[in-house]
Amino acid sequence: MTLKLFEVGGADDAFRPSPYCWRTRMALAHKGLAFEPVPWRAVEKDRIARSGGGIVPVLVDGDFWLNESWDIAVHLETAYPDRPSLFDGDGDRAKARFLDAWITGTVHGLIFRAVVRDQVPLLAEKDQAYYRERTLRKFGLSLDDIGADPDTAVEELDRVLAPLQSVLDEVPYLGGSRPTYGDYIVFGAFQWARVASRRKLYADDSPVARWFARLLAAFDGFAAAQPGRDHWE
Amino acid sequence: MTLKLFEVGGADDAFRPSPYCWRTRMALAHKGLAFEPVPWRAVEKDRIARSGGGIVPVLVDGDFWLNESWDIAVHLETAYPDRPSLFDGDGDRAKARFLDAWITGTVHGLIFRAVVRDQVPLLAEKDQAYYRERTLRKFGLSLDDIGADPDTAVEELDRVLAPLQSVLDEVPYLGGSRPTYGDYIVFGAFQWARVASRRKLYADDSPVARWFARLLAAFDGFAAAQPGRDHWE
Repeated sequence: MTLKLFEVGGADDAFRPSPYCWRTRMALAHKGLAFEPVPWRAVEKDRIARSGGGIVPVLVDGDFWLNESWDIAVHLETAYPDRPSLFDGDGDRAKARFLDAWITGTVHGLIFRAVVRDQVPLLAEKDQAYYRERTLRKFGLSLDDIGADPDTAVEELDRVLAPLQSVLDEVPYLGGSRPTYGDYIVFGAFQWARVASRRKLYADDSPVARWFARLLAAFDGFAAAQPGRDHWE
Repeated sequence: MTLKLFEVGGADDAFRPSPYCWRTRMALAHKGLAFEPVPWRAVEKDRIARSGGGIVPVLVDGDFWLNESWDIAVHLETAYPDRPSLFDGDGDRAKARFLDAWITGTVHGLIFRAVVRDQVPLLAEKDQAYYRERTLRKFGLSLDDIGADPDTAVEELDRVLAPLQSVLDEVPYLGGSRPTYGDYIVFGAFQWARVASRRKLYADDSPVARWFARLLAAFDGFAAAQPGRDHWE
C-alpha cells in the first residue's frame, strides 16, 4: 500500500515550496519509505477534509489521514519502528520540538519577507488570490508590503542564524554525526528559499551552506532533485 | 581528591550570579560529584592563570585546570563515564550546543538589561569598578545605560522565550523525561536572574516557570539552596 503525500504545488505541478512539506518529504526519505506525491492548491480544502484540517502536508497512510508535520513525523516513528529512527532518543526529540518552534516563530517570517516577492508568481493563479487575501486578513499587510524590503530581512536573518552557524561549525548535523528530524525541520526553511528565490540567505562558505549541501545530497540526492529557482524562470 | 570550582562570588562570598558557573554546578550535581566552591572576583586573574584564561567557571580536577563551561561538561562526561550522562546521545549533545549559542547570543543580553541594575550593588566593590570599565569598553555603554529600561527588556524576552515556552508545555525537560545538560545551559540564565533580581521574567504559571521550579528542586534542592534575591536585601 503506497503512502500518499498531499503537498503545496504551484502553477507547475512539480513546484514544491512548502517548508513543512519538505520536513515530511525528508522524514519519508530518511525512513526509506516510497510515497506518491500529490500536488495540491491551498484553495482545495475539500480534497484534504478527511485529515480534519485545511493545511498540508497531509499524509495518507492506509486509513490514517494525518496533517501537521510534527504529528506525521511521530506517526512515522511509531508506525515504522524498524526503519531508521527520526530521533536519537528523548533529548534529541524534545530539542527538535524546540527547533520547530524556533524556526517557525523566528526564521520563517524572515524568509517569507525575503522570498515572497519571487515566489508569488510561481503559485497557481487561484492560490495567488487566496494568499493575497489571507495575508491581508492575518497580518493587516499586503504580500507586496511584506516582500518590499527583502535585503533588510536577509540582514536580520544573518543575526538570527548565528546560533545555527555556530553549532554547524562544530558538528556536521544537528543530529550530531548523522541527520535526525531536527535537521529536516531546519532544512525545510532553506529548501523553500532555494526553490522559490535566487536570493542568498547566507554565505556560500558558511557552516549552514555546507550543512545544507550535505542534506541536498542525502538519500541519493533526493532533495537536490527538486529544481531550484533557476528552473522556473 | 576533591574537585574545586572557581566561581564568581559577590560582596558576600555566598553570592553566585554567574549563569555559566550554574551550568557547571548543575552538571556536577547531575553527575553526583562533590566539589569545593571557591568564590572568586573578576579582577583576580592570577588565581586562575593555570586555566589558560581569565574567566570562570574554572574546574580544577587533579592536574586539569579547565575553563569554558562547555569544555568542562565534555570533560566531566569523558572523565566520569560511570556517572549519569549529561547527554542523551549525539543528537541531544549537538542540540545542547545550539541552545548554548542561542541562549548566550539572544537571552543573556536581555536578562543582562533586565537585572544588571539590581545586580551591581551585590558585587564585590573591586569587581563593580572592573565591570563598569569593561562594559563601557566593550559596548560603548555604561552599566547604567544598559540597565536603564528593564521593562522593555522583559517585554522583548517574552517574545524570545516563546519557543522555550512552547516545548516545555509539551515535555517536562529539554532532555525529554529527564534533564540533560541542555536544560542546565538554559537554567543558568534564569538562576542568574533569580539570584540577582526580584524582577519577574515570565508568568508564574508558565511552562518555563514550572520547569525552572522542577530544576530548583532537583538533586535534593541543590539549586534552591542558593538564596534568591530576597536574601541579599
